Amino acid sequence: MKQPGGIRFGINFVPTVGPEERSAARYFDESLNLAARAEALGLGSARITEHYFYDYGGYCPDPVTFLSALAQRTTRMRLCTAGVTPAFSHPIRIASQLAMLDNLSHGRLDAGFARGFVPHEFDAFGVALEESRSRFEEGVSAITWLWTQPEATWRGRYHAFGPVRLLPLPYQQPHPPIWVVTTFSPELFEWSGRNGYHLMAVPYISTHENTANLVGIYRRAWEAAGHRRGAEQVQLSLHCYIAEDGATARREAKRYYEEYTTKLLQAVGAWSSRRVAAYAGYQNLGRAIEANAYEGVLRETKALIGSPREIVEQVAYLRGWYGDFEASLQFNFASVPDDAAHRSLELLGTAVLPALREQGLTTSLDGSAPPGPNRPRGC
Amino acid sequence: MKQPGGIRFGINFVPTVGPEERSAARYFDESLNLAARAEALGLGSARITEHYFYDYGGYCPDPVTFLSALAQRTTRMRLCTAGVTPAFSHPIRIASQLAMLDNLSHGRLDAGFARGFVPHEFDAFGVALEESRSRFEEGVSAITWLWTQPEATWRGRYHAFGPVRLLPLPYQQPHPPIWVVTTFSPELFEWSGRNGYHLMAVPYISTHENTANLVGIYRRAWEAAGHRRGAEQVQLSLHCYIAEDGATARREAKRYYEEYTTKLLQAVGAWSSRRVAAYAGYQNLGRAIEANAYEGVLRETKALIGSPREIVEQVAYLRGWYGDFEASLQFNFASVPDDAAHRSLELLGTAVLPALREQGLTTSLDGSAPPGPNRPRGC
Repeated sequence: MKQPGGIRFGINFVPTVGPEERSAARYFDESLNLAARAEALGLGSARITEHYFYDYGGYCPDPVTFLSALAQRTTRMRLCTAGVTPAFSHPIRIASQLAMLDNLSHGRLDAGFARGFVPHEFDAFGVALEESRSRFEEGVSAITWLWTQPEATWRGRYHAFGPVRLLPLPYQQPHPPIWVVTTFSPELFEWSGRNGYHLMAVPYISTHENTANLVGIYRRAWEAAGHRRGAEQVQLSLHCYIAEDGATARREAKRYYEEYTTKLLQAVGAWSSRRVAAYAGYQNLGRAIEANAYEGVLRETKALIGSPREIVEQVAYLRGWYGDFEASLQFNFASVPDDAAHRSLELLGTAVLPALREQGLTTSLDGSAPPGPNRPRGC
Repeated sequence: MKQPGGIRFGINFVPTVGPEERSAARYFDESLNLAARAEALGLGSARITEHYFYDYGGYCPDPVTFLSALAQRTTRMRLCTAGVTPAFSHPIRIASQLAMLDNLSHGRLDAGFARGFVPHEFDAFGVALEESRSRFEEGVSAITWLWTQPEATWRGRYHAFGPVRLLPLPYQQPHPPIWVVTTFSPELFEWSGRNGYHLMAVPYISTHENTANLVGIYRRAWEAAGHRRGAEQVQLSLHCYIAEDGATARREAKRYYEEYTTKLLQAVGAWSSRRVAAYAGYQNLGRAIEANAYEGVLRETKALIGSPREIVEQVAYLRGWYGDFEASLQFNFASVPDDAAHRSLELLGTAVLPALREQGLTTSLDGSAPPGPNRPRGC
């Protein structure tokens, strides 16, 4: 089932440094430069998370603010929120802010949404974790409604408003492509496919067998709902660390990967004492992350770490599991120094991508041809 | 009471076009270019409003998203939100988003807040107009608290959270200067001065006598609370339209000024049937705007419209009313064409500012030396 684009590539930011290691101003400067260079090397998208309070993601509580800056530094790459959490803001705020970015970037927004999974974030916003799924679904629906109705009226479980005329409307018509960030929940994979939304999956915490099964659920739901086969897009978030010599890459990346998982553990630590039906198995999340040792990640190719030649093999291997996908690569995760992140990126652009192209694994180096917005529900 | 900076200048955006007249993408492109040119010509700040739904302000529901883009196009000018409305978002969202902008711009944020005054906005967000003042005050206090406490806990009337560690913290320490947008309310002028906040006033709807009295209340409250005399800052929002020939400027600007007030009237039309104690006199706002005809605005110098030589005289006249202030100038209000806005700006930068400097009315052309953040309360 070869797709026109083959494997595509983007850059992915999950800020995992705190003020003790790197100032926020420096993190943003470095990340904007890195993303601008990624576009120049042919990567087709940039995405960044929304998180709070912890070194895990905390430097970016508002992905739109970062991507709006990036829109001025780039001209082609897609700008992906990964993802905005509807539970924490009013849908009018989210819909209108995203529409501003879509206009500021001349239609380069990929609107990614997330249910959220960090208990302390929900506590701080005074939102029950039990409601995260229903708030997420209502939020995405209300935002789409605001984007597409000339006079939008909404009467939901959590929000009621209207009629209002949203301003500005999105640049992309009928609305920007919608993406969903999801990791474990089969229901959410199914729901995303059924609704014609694109998928942002995170394979490194689970096994490829599990994640590929979930992606399969997503793709079957997409087709079953009548969406055009092959038009669905799947992004996989992957840590990436490349050096001329593969052993060097593996040796150097170890501490950063482990720092990253340590910081993720801090953010999800509260799950060890929480039981929420909607988050089945999350009480074991900490143990799962701890058990997911660096050596296993290397062995099972749950990150792209190695020499350029090895990365080519790893991409081909992942394609065996997932079919065509977009590799959304974290280069400056945790305390990876700026020069090391740039080295990985340069080797990707100058050695890995040309080799993949030669093998026919990626037909479009820049991957930047924007997909059409997903069709309205039920098509 | 001459201040070091004399009269300073900035650029001011209140988008007052709708999709029928100019696309949002084009409005943003033009405005970013205009602001970047303003910096090059020596203007020290850019500010933009937060509004929804109406041609009056509706293109910018999120000032931070616009200013984050502008931060990448400029290196010196202050970036002012004018103002963020705390009633419509959670304080954690506002505090952390503003802190991102402060870091992205390396400390150029002027954090302006507004109570809000458009009934339909409050209706849409499900917030009672009666609560606007208390929500505003609690919001500003909670945001400041989040910016300055390593572990912030808040138990207020509308919000309760914490302890949380805000990330990122602002670039400016202890926090960005706080500004308050206010027009009519003596209580709010007094409150702003007492708390050591800077002032964004809007003289054109009222008389200079009224507005100067209110600014006097503000300055006296500032001094009475022990804040350093002369450290307070007062920004006046003014429409600006300049041509080599003054009569041409006055003739051309008329239709844009009238379009602007028509659109403002649409946004505040609901006041004709509302009575809210906290908005004394707002039921007459529509009539006041209608009565404020263009000819009167010219006669009373409630906008800067004319030839460069006339603008110099107008600035000197306003200084008589207000002492030193920052003129925050709307060049592309309503449907003013892009080339006309640029003409006004160029004439300001190349003819008006040099003349003012010669007269000693502005000692700093760029006005960009950032003021220190306002001191903590009670100093």
